[in-house]
Amino acid sequence: MQSENPTAAILVIGDEILSGRTREGNAHHLAQVLSATGFDLREMRIVADDHDQIVAAIRALDRSLGGAYDLLFTSGGIGPTHDDITADAVAAAHGTTVEINDEARILLQARCDRMGMELTPNRLRMARVPVGGTLIDNAVSAAPGFSIGNTHVMAGVPEVFRGMVDWLIPRLPGGQPVQSETVEVRRGESDVAEQLEEMASKFPDLSMGSYPFRDERGWGTNLVVRGLDAARVSFAMSELRRELGL
Amino acid sequence: MQSENPTAAILVIGDEILSGRTREGNAHHLAQVLSATGFDLREMRIVADDHDQIVAAIRALDRSLGGAYDLLFTSGGIGPTHDDITADAVAAAHGTTVEINDEARILLQARCDRMGMELTPNRLRMARVPVGGTLIDNAVSAAPGFSIGNTHVMAGVPEVFRGMVDWLIPRLPGGQPVQSETVEVRRGESDVAEQLEEMASKFPDLSMGSYPFRDERGWGTNLVVRGLDAARVSFAMSELRRELGL
Repeated sequence: MQSENPTAAILVIGDEILSGRTREGNAHHLAQVLSATGFDLREMRIVADDHDQIVAAIRALDRSLGGAYDLLFTSGGIGPTHDDITADAVAAAHGTTVEINDEARILLQARCDRMGMELTPNRLRMARVPVGGTLIDNAVSAAPGFSIGNTHVMAGVPEVFRGMVDWLIPRLPGGQPVQSETVEVRRGESDVAEQLEEMASKFPDLSMGSYPFRDERGWGTNLVVRGLDAARVSFAMSELRRELGL
Repeated sequence: MQSENPTAAILVIGDEILSGRTREGNAHHLAQVLSATGFDLREMRIVADDHDQIVAAIRALDRSLGGAYDLLFTSGGIGPTHDDITADAVAAAHGTTVEINDEARILLQARCDRMGMELTPNRLRMARVPVGGTLIDNAVSAAPGFSIGNTHVMAGVPEVFRGMVDWLIPRLPGGQPVQSETVEVRRGESDVAEQLEEMASKFPDLSMGSYPFRDERGWGTNLVVRGLDAARVSFAMSELRRELGL
């Protein structure tokens, strides 16, 4: 599928994913949002709470640092504890340092005042933002995310992450949303491979995928046609159905 | 946490994950198995069905090719259709080519005979294995995975992937399983950050993680202590509970 949409990567930071304790869900959510809003997600990476590993991944993925993709979204590691090292790693990757951001401090102070809490040094850690960064709104719990270069840094708690995505994505220059149509056949992949390949060469501007599965009725395959032009996707799908005798 | 366990990475290959159509589950399953069997999973990557991207990722992750980790496990892209390009990419990364593997052909032929099916050219594609590769058993549907260098290549269909993991992992030289204990507190992360940091410096051989969440009762935090020695993990957890007044 040819696309001039901005390319993107997601970097998830967190030992809890790698240990198997937590099943990653933020990247999956953002992948759906990016498809629907015209960004071409090319890669996801999940790394440990490890400074060097985070810095290396950011440099590899953010085009503003010589990396591979137009935009980089991160999830995780911006809380108040000793293992929350994302802000420092992002700053290091972008060649800057971290400071208490005034705007973020005011947001946190306001929330503490509202809730009758003290803005302790630990809570204030959540106002640490790389110099030159701009804030990403947190509608759930005040502690903001931030953007610097082409890196957009968001929280790992799913509700907070989703709130930040909802705020951020409409503010980024997107492209054309991807259109897709799916047909399920009760055949193995081998039995539809030929027809699918024929369609793929007939419609080089579209992407044809086949996803085998097994359920209580045995093997089946989902065939998916994707492209930027809904009419063209529909036309290719009707051709594919005809080829398959559906 | 200090560990001499073998390090590992997982590479998931599939447009369907990046498009948001499918939520990744194989890497999560394998992460749990690796924790329990003494492998130190350091990174997951998810890339598209793109030859160059797969080759680059394998080279970056497999130590036998100068990459970062002792072992690399892959999921996806070894089916019979035109978009199944993993075998070719793995071969290219390891500087070899793909051929019809005799042992794999015999397995597929036997299954076709059992099921009264013909071993068509498309089905035979699933016997394509890099020269020098050894097979990974597929108890579900015969088409095997394979190992070459330190790269272990498995199917993307979850049932098949799990069967391959069950067969493969006991055959690899593992290390010490990671032990962990968790305590849930009904406090925000900021309110336990100090105690957690103190414990982290008191027990440098262990790993202390804090995972905030939000549910119908409001904010809470899971505190997790991990290490290779179960008695030491228990001792640290009892100290942490005491610090927190639990």
